[in-house]
Amino acid sequence: MSIDLRLVAILDPTVLGGRDPVSAARAAQAGGATALQLRMKDIPAGEIATLAERLLAVMDIPLFINDRADVALAVGATGVHLGQDDVPAAALRAVSPPGFQIGLSVGFPDEAAIARQSRPDYWSIGPLYRTASKADAGVPLGPGGFARLASLADRDVPVIAIGGIDASNATAAIRAGAAGVAVISAIFSAADVEAAARLMRSAVDAAIGQGREPPGSRRGAP
Amino acid sequence: MSIDLRLVAILDPTVLGGRDPVSAARAAQAGGATALQLRMKDIPAGEIATLAERLLAVMDIPLFINDRADVALAVGATGVHLGQDDVPAAALRAVSPPGFQIGLSVGFPDEAAIARQSRPDYWSIGPLYRTASKADAGVPLGPGGFARLASLADRDVPVIAIGGIDASNATAAIRAGAAGVAVISAIFSAADVEAAARLMRSAVDAAIGQGREPPGSRRGAP
Repeated sequence: MSIDLRLVAILDPTVLGGRDPVSAARAAQAGGATALQLRMKDIPAGEIATLAERLLAVMDIPLFINDRADVALAVGATGVHLGQDDVPAAALRAVSPPGFQIGLSVGFPDEAAIARQSRPDYWSIGPLYRTASKADAGVPLGPGGFARLASLADRDVPVIAIGGIDASNATAAIRAGAAGVAVISAIFSAADVEAAARLMRSAVDAAIGQGREPPGSRRGAP
Repeated sequence: MSIDLRLVAILDPTVLGGRDPVSAARAAQAGGATALQLRMKDIPAGEIATLAERLLAVMDIPLFINDRADVALAVGATGVHLGQDDVPAAALRAVSPPGFQIGLSVGFPDEAAIARQSRPDYWSIGPLYRTASKADAGVPLGPGGFARLASLADRDVPVIAIGGIDASNATAAIRAGAAGVAVISAIFSAADVEAAARLMRSAVDAAIGQGREPPGSRRGAP
């Protein structure tokens, strides 16, 4: 199964300022988000599952759950996005149904080596830029650092960029070889979520259109 | 699959005072624990999985993972123990392999109603007594409260007691209808874990022997 990862909207309800997460997710989808990732840190799994089920009932784009593979499996989400300190991707794959998508965060060369072995369905490499959404995200890679890490992925595994990406710098991410971008604040902190998603999607699509190779390639012009 | 739940040793590494959790688990098994539950709150799933795999490599008794069904599934544990705020048991069941055991905590009548619907493999009812291991555990049920909640379970679902149980009061738990007891401190806070487990197991076995019905029944003398 090939998932469109051009614009992954990461829904972290804490950035919504009290706005309804399902309405926000629908607005992101209406604006052109191609996938949704639900990210609820330090929240009981049951609460995550409840919101995930509400999202699944009304959303058309694929839903990933951050970290909690048990929630992703139980609610029948498209997949899970794992960090390096989450459950091992390869072990999880062995107990997951066919087609269940596993994404993995990669931020360092040693993590890339682990990712090569565990064969997730996509890599998420970051932080590309400085970000307020993840205080402990570490030193930004920049497009050059991103491209170096992305070059370590097998050619058939799409790589997306994350961390401080907005409509103004998404082009650089795509040109560095990203098949897409994942954003939290650039969409869900915006006053008009749909408009913000539309702006992001336009920037990504334009950058992909300008590239010399099709989406999914990480050999775009540097 | 019927699991022997007479003495569930709940391994929470934070109560070990720096002692090796695998050695402690082996000591509990040597003393007569019939099942082990690994409970690591607010710890990354990858770290839980690493310890779970170390335990699976050396232990003979069934291993349950507290809360993290993803870890339990990925490492091939016997099952998971869920709280009421964890992933829904029924939804998890649908994506779990045959024989995967799901235990569920029950502390209130409304939770018993949920448990009846979701059909876990066993109920864990508590807190029976006041406990230091779980500060927010709520008002103790006492044997009478335990028996009332336990009476709400279907007859074929074993019920174990948890919360402040030690060798001195395990008899009351069994007489109130428990098929077994789950303990943290009474085993793993002890200076001699194996001796403490042996004492607990003797108390449980003696109480079961004195009961008028076989283990698994919750119609022991009140």
